[in-house]
This record gives sequence, C-alpha cells and structure tokens, in this order.
Amino acid sequence: MSTQQLIEPRTLKGFRDYLPEVMIPRERLMETARRVYRSYGFSPIDTPALEYLEILAGKGSDETDRQMYRFEHGGRQVGMRFDLTIPLARFAAQHIGKLGTPFKRYHIAPVWRGENTQAGRYREFVQCDFDTIGTESVASDVETALVIHDLLKAIGIERFQVRINNRQILNGLLEQLGLLDRSQAVLRAIDKLEKLGPDVVDEELQRVGGLTAEQAASVLGLCKMNGDSNELLNQLEHALVGNDSGTAGVARLRAIIDGLKAAGVSEDRYRVDVTIARGLDYYTGVVFETLLQDLPSIGSVCSGGRYDNLAGLYTKQHLPGIGASLGLDRLIAAMEQLNQIEKPKTTANVFVPFFDADRLNDYMKLCSVVRRGGYNVEFYPDSKKLGAQLKFADDRGFPVALVAGSDELNAGNCQVKDLRNKSSEVVNWSESSQPLLDAIAKIISSSTTSK
Amino acid sequence: MSTQQLIEPRTLKGFRDYLPEVMIPRERLMETARRVYRSYGFSPIDTPALEYLEILAGKGSDETDRQMYRFEHGGRQVGMRFDLTIPLARFAAQHIGKLGTPFKRYHIAPVWRGENTQAGRYREFVQCDFDTIGTESVASDVETALVIHDLLKAIGIERFQVRINNRQILNGLLEQLGLLDRSQAVLRAIDKLEKLGPDVVDEELQRVGGLTAEQAASVLGLCKMNGDSNELLNQLEHALVGNDSGTAGVARLRAIIDGLKAAGVSEDRYRVDVTIARGLDYYTGVVFETLLQDLPSIGSVCSGGRYDNLAGLYTKQHLPGIGASLGLDRLIAAMEQLNQIEKPKTTANVFVPFFDADRLNDYMKLCSVVRRGGYNVEFYPDSKKLGAQLKFADDRGFPVALVAGSDELNAGNCQVKDLRNKSSEVVNWSESSQPLLDAIAKIISSSTTSK
Repeated sequence: MSTQQLIEPRTLKGFRDYLPEVMIPRERLMETARRVYRSYGFSPIDTPALEYLEILAGKGSDETDRQMYRFEHGGRQVGMRFDLTIPLARFAAQHIGKLGTPFKRYHIAPVWRGENTQAGRYREFVQCDFDTIGTESVASDVETALVIHDLLKAIGIERFQVRINNRQILNGLLEQLGLLDRSQAVLRAIDKLEKLGPDVVDEELQRVGGLTAEQAASVLGLCKMNGDSNELLNQLEHALVGNDSGTAGVARLRAIIDGLKAAGVSEDRYRVDVTIARGLDYYTGVVFETLLQDLPSIGSVCSGGRYDNLAGLYTKQHLPGIGASLGLDRLIAAMEQLNQIEKPKTTANVFVPFFDADRLNDYMKLCSVVRRGGYNVEFYPDSKKLGAQLKFADDRGFPVALVAGSDELNAGNCQVKDLRNKSSEVVNWSESSQPLLDAIAKIISSSTTSK
Repeated sequence: MSTQQLIEPRTLKGFRDYLPEVMIPRERLMETARRVYRSYGFSPIDTPALEYLEILAGKGSDETDRQMYRFEHGGRQVGMRFDLTIPLARFAAQHIGKLGTPFKRYHIAPVWRGENTQAGRYREFVQCDFDTIGTESVASDVETALVIHDLLKAIGIERFQVRINNRQILNGLLEQLGLLDRSQAVLRAIDKLEKLGPDVVDEELQRVGGLTAEQAASVLGLCKMNGDSNELLNQLEHALVGNDSGTAGVARLRAIIDGLKAAGVSEDRYRVDVTIARGLDYYTGVVFETLLQDLPSIGSVCSGGRYDNLAGLYTKQHLPGIGASLGLDRLIAAMEQLNQIEKPKTTANVFVPFFDADRLNDYMKLCSVVRRGGYNVEFYPDSKKLGAQLKFADDRGFPVALVAGSDELNAGNCQVKDLRNKSSEVVNWSESSQPLLDAIAKIISSSTTSK
C-alpha cells in the first residue's frame, strides 16, 4: 500500500464531516428532541434513505425535484429522500391500517438535496420532524405548539417566541372581499411584510395581486393589528364578523391560546401573528413559526402546521394531521452566533494518566471504579511523560485528573487534581470508592456551574 | 389530487420501514451504545453518506465494490458508504492533525450495500463502531474488550462471552514450522473448525495449505488446546518457546486477560480462543468476537481487532489502532429469537382520555402537571366514547390512564386507573401534584418489575 499514490482525503462539495466538538452538541440536541417528543407520546420511526423515484418525484416542489439525488440501480429508478414528509406520507399509506389513528411519530434523520452550494447551503442535513396523523382536533394544535415550546426550553434557549396563525383567517378576509382566488398572490406579498415593509407590500398587492387600493388597505390592516393575543383575537373577530371561515379560524386560535395558558406556558413565549403564511399550498389551518428574539434574522427554527390530507397520492384514506420540524442546523448556527453552545472536545470528564508503566492493572481497576460511580473516564493509553498527558487533558477541557504513581497505588490512594484551578488532594479509594467519587463530584459541580 | 391514479406505497427491495415497535428498542440500543462508548471517552463523529467514488472504490473487498451504490452527480462519480471504516480512514487522514492522538471516536450511522436480497439480507443497515486511533498500547486492547463487555451487559444480555485471540500466536507457530507464507490458507481452514470439525480442517490444511500431516497436527493441536484462560496461555507459551512473535503474542493476551480481571469482569464473560481469525488481511494483532451462549449459531454480535495502519491510502502518517463494531441488526434478531426484547407500541406510559369535550384546558393542565413530574403522557385528541379511548390505550400497552369527567375536574380530582389489573383510585391533584405522581409511580413500578 505504501508505494501507491496517495488519494486526497476530502469530502464532496456541499457535504461535511462532523468533528466531536460539533457532533457532541448535535447529539445532545437530538437527544433533547427525542426526550421532548416522547414526553407527548410521539414514537420513533425510520424509513429508507432510498425510495422508488415515483414515490418522490413530483411530490415536493419543482425545486426539490431538480435537486433530488436520483439514479438507476438494478433496473430501478431510485431517489434519495429530500425531506421526511413524503416518506411519512408513503409510510402512513402503507402501514396506518396496522398502526391505527391517531398516530404520533417522530423521525430524526438525514435528507439530501443537491442545492446550490454557493449560498452556503449544505446538501446533506438532518431533519427532526414530529407529526400527529388522523385527527382534526384542536387538542393536537395545542399539543404541537406545546412541543415546540418545551423543545426550545429544554434546549436551553431563553428568548424565543412561537408565532401562531391560522390560514382560515386571511382566507376569511379574502372571501369577504371577494378575493379568494387571489389568495396565493396575497400570501406571497404578505410574506415579505417583515422584510420589505408595508409600502412595498401594498404596491405588490395592487400590481401583482390586482387588488384595489381599498382592498389592499383591508389586507394590510388585518396584518398590522397588534396588541396581546387576546386583544388581537378580539380585533380579528370583529373584522371578520359574518364570515364563517374567518370566525371559525379566530375561534380555533383562541382555543389554542387558551390551551397554552392552561398548560402553564408563559405569555411572552407565544404570539398570534397574522402575517405568517408558510408553505403556500400545503398547510390548510393553523401554522407555526419560532423566532429567536436575539437573532430574528436567522428565520424560524421550528415550523409547521396543519394539513388536510397527508397521503392522498398513495391511499384513498383521508389522513388529516399536524406537525412541525426542528431546523437542527439552523438552530445550531444561531446558537453559535449567540455564543450559546458549548463545543466540548470530549465526552468524558475524568482523565486518568498512565503514569507508571508497570501498573496497568491498577489503573484499569481505578478507571472501572470511577466509571461504575457514573463518570465518563478516559485513560491515556501510553505511559508518556506526565506533563504531556496532562497537557492532552487540558487541551480537551477535562475538569478532573486522577494521578497515581506507584507510591499512591501501593497505599490505595490517588491524587484528585482540579485541572482548572490546579489544586489537588490525595484520596484513598481502596476501602470504599465513595471518598473518591465525592472528591470528583465536588470539582465537576464547581466547574459546570457556569454552564 | 384525488382524481389522480394512486401510486402504490412500497419500499425498495432489501429496504424496510421501522415501525415504532421495532424503532423504539433500536433507539434504546443505540442510546445504550452511546452511553457506554462515552463512559470510556469515545466521542461521536459523523461523515457524509456520499463520498467521492475514488475514496470508496477498491478499498473494501471485491464484494463491497460490486455492491456499492454509485452514480454520477454534477459531473462527479460518487458512492454511498458501505461501512464506517473507510470513511474513518479518510476522516482521520484529513483531520487528525487538528484532533491529535490518541483519538477515540464512535460512529453510529446507516451504510448501504446492494446485497443479494435472496439471502434475507438488507441493503441498508446501521453500524455502531468505536475505534481508538494512534496508539499501539495494550491498554487500548484491554479497553476495547471492556467496552464490548460493558455494552452487552448494559443491553441486558445475560449469557455472552467475548472470545479473544492474537493473530501473532498462529503466525508464531507457522514461523516455527517454516509455514509463514501459508498463513492465509491456514487461517481460512481454521476458520471452519467450529462448523466442520477437525477432520475436514486437517484434510484442507494438507490438501489446500500443502502442510505435512505432522504440521497439520501441530496447527490443530494449538487450536484444540483448552482449559481456562490461564492454563491455555501457559500451554501456548510452552508450545511457542523460542519464537519471539508467538511469545510476544501470548504475553499480550495475558496482559489483556489480567486487565479484564483487574477491571472486575467475571471470568465466564471472556475466553482466549485461538481459532478466531476474523478479517484475514485487515487485522494484525488482537482480535475479538462476541458469542451469545444461548444462540451461538447467529455468530458474533460484536467483533473487532487491532490494525497496523488505518489510513495509509490517504496519508503518510502512520495510524495504528484498534476498534470493534456492534452488529445492531444481528443482535436485535438474536434478542427477538431469544424473546429478550420488548416491542412497545408507544413511548408514553400515562394515557389521558379526552372525556369531556368542553374541558380541553383542564386536560392540558393535567397533562402538563404529570409531564413535569417526569412521565411521558399521551392525550387522546378526540372526545370519543371513553371505552374506545381506553381500548386504544390497552392495545398500546399503557399501564396507567388518568380518567376525569366534569365532576372530577370540578373537584380537582382524577381517577388513576391501573390498566393491567383494572383497579382505580381517585386522587386530588389541585393542591399538590405529589399524590397523583405517587399513585402513577406505584402502578408503573409494579407493571415493570418483570422487565
């Protein structure tokens, strides 16, 4: 092998390796998502990375079709999944008879899109979806908002807000104005409100949407309503009097807001926001976005909504549902910008140097005692100079090292070193491991109080 | 959409969906693996599913080359990874300067092989690898065996045995016999010993390997040595006197056995087994297999060994190492056969029926109280008949239901129902949640004692 020309080690454009300092926090976030999803009774599923092309093609947008990784294998046209929603639709059509409804699933898995990498986009990224299928109940709307709330809170984000809207509200207004057939153009214009301001949107509503100045003013008036959620709902109710769809939409939003309050969610954590449109064709009822108040420009980190019929392409069974997706990579990018994420270089917290080359068995015993006490212990495998080993531990941010030479080992002792403030104490661990575990606990709890 | 022809919902041949009852135990196993790997200071990494074809092609066997999913994308030849070892080699060559050695990583991720599906093989499966790179220390040999041991134990397997060998031992004997150039043929013959018996192997050693009857007897004599690990090592030492490589190999095995004992591993959990060859060309030192004593026929569920140079194709840096891989799917198949795996239908343990349609907010409050108490709570979203809702809970194996109608809710009470033995008690939760949480805990602890 050594005489061969070396192959340059590199990843494909738009793909990336996750080194431990990035993968450790990623795993923590995924574990948090799983824990929160499970706390509401969502169960995990997985589906293949590859599907028949006919399952995937033409089901997303023109863009996802164009970006799909597709190829022939064994005479079959196959594609790599570009989201977790189309696979869920196929999965539900195939298995819902066995699973029954309501069916609550989460799915955390990579998806692939051959995006333009110029835009700083990646071609492989992880989605963390949860959905409730087979019910139109407002209870599931409330629960979806609660899951988003609990998730962001569990991740440790302090300042976030779940924005809630109901597509029926704007549709109600458009119905009142006789403009229901313009809803797509209107939604597209409104979507730009936050970015471009009301004047630009007003102009677009008239020029592209074909609204009169008065109609555009009504639409913008609805979007500009504000106040706390209750006031806003009262204003909306008033504006939509006599319109069934709009009134029902407002009532549903009110039920959601009341449910959140009953569940103990603090009022600054959610807000009714009529300008949220999301997924123009897809969602049919309530929609959610989640903004980070310290970094709103990064966009929504957890979004979703209610849909009428998930799996209509694959089954005649009517399957309404609601769900949302955590944008893992976007959230991590935001937390990095906000300096709210740790980048640990190791999963372990106790370091044991290999000090005396003749005493491997004693170190193995020491490590297993501490490991059984619940700590993650890294033993340095080579009996190099102690200084080099401790530098390795320092570079990786270990808070504690257990140093023992033959004298200590003969006496059943070890030095418990606090690697941050450089203090140390000698502890006996031959009779009972408790004094040692206590000494470690003291250092670790003091070194993590700031986190 | 409804007028369109339906597309048949199906997965590609050799691919499968994981429904909750399969995915829940899979996730638990992967979590256990992560926890054990971390307890030894292994850190997670991830690499892309797709690599440049030149990185993957010609690096495994002819078989992996043939089975690789490969295609052209944007003018580049790409392939889907078929294991986690080649990506680790590429990763190490690319990043080891930044990461430093020893580098301990784990990687749990799907791989793809276009296998013959007739054999009941799947084309997508998850590997759970851990490796220590950049050291030749025996300490890492001991640790690798300890990780395998702790992993199987943490998964809850009672009867397993880690079989340990060192490739140097047989090489030493072959050197003594002047047969070092026949080692591949000899290893291939020995590999069949357990399945086909000594007569067949004897014949093959002579016919294919070209050994004399006496030489074949020496090789078989080495393989047939038995006794406990210490006796066996003494016999091996004696048989290999005067041969440096063989003697060093025995000494290393002895150090590993001593290390396992020092770490407190029970002696029936490991055994020196000279017949284990594994990965003919790849491994150069100690090798491991793990047998389930109640189902040895399924083969090794966790295997690995030491290699000389991981990344020689991609870098001039010499990177020795050692690692092993948990065969997740094989282990799950074995646990299914042994009836040692649960197949839960839900992640939640507390079920709350939607009994009174007008009291959604009270149920939301009740659920959040119980959830904050640490339980996974599923609320039924539709206010159907109570019997239908409780049947839903029964079908999914919930141990507890909290039933409350308007009378209970008005009094701040709920009925805590034990769904297994059908008993129930009324508990007040309006003043403090503790009595309710205690009543739930009592039922859940009694329903899980058998697990």
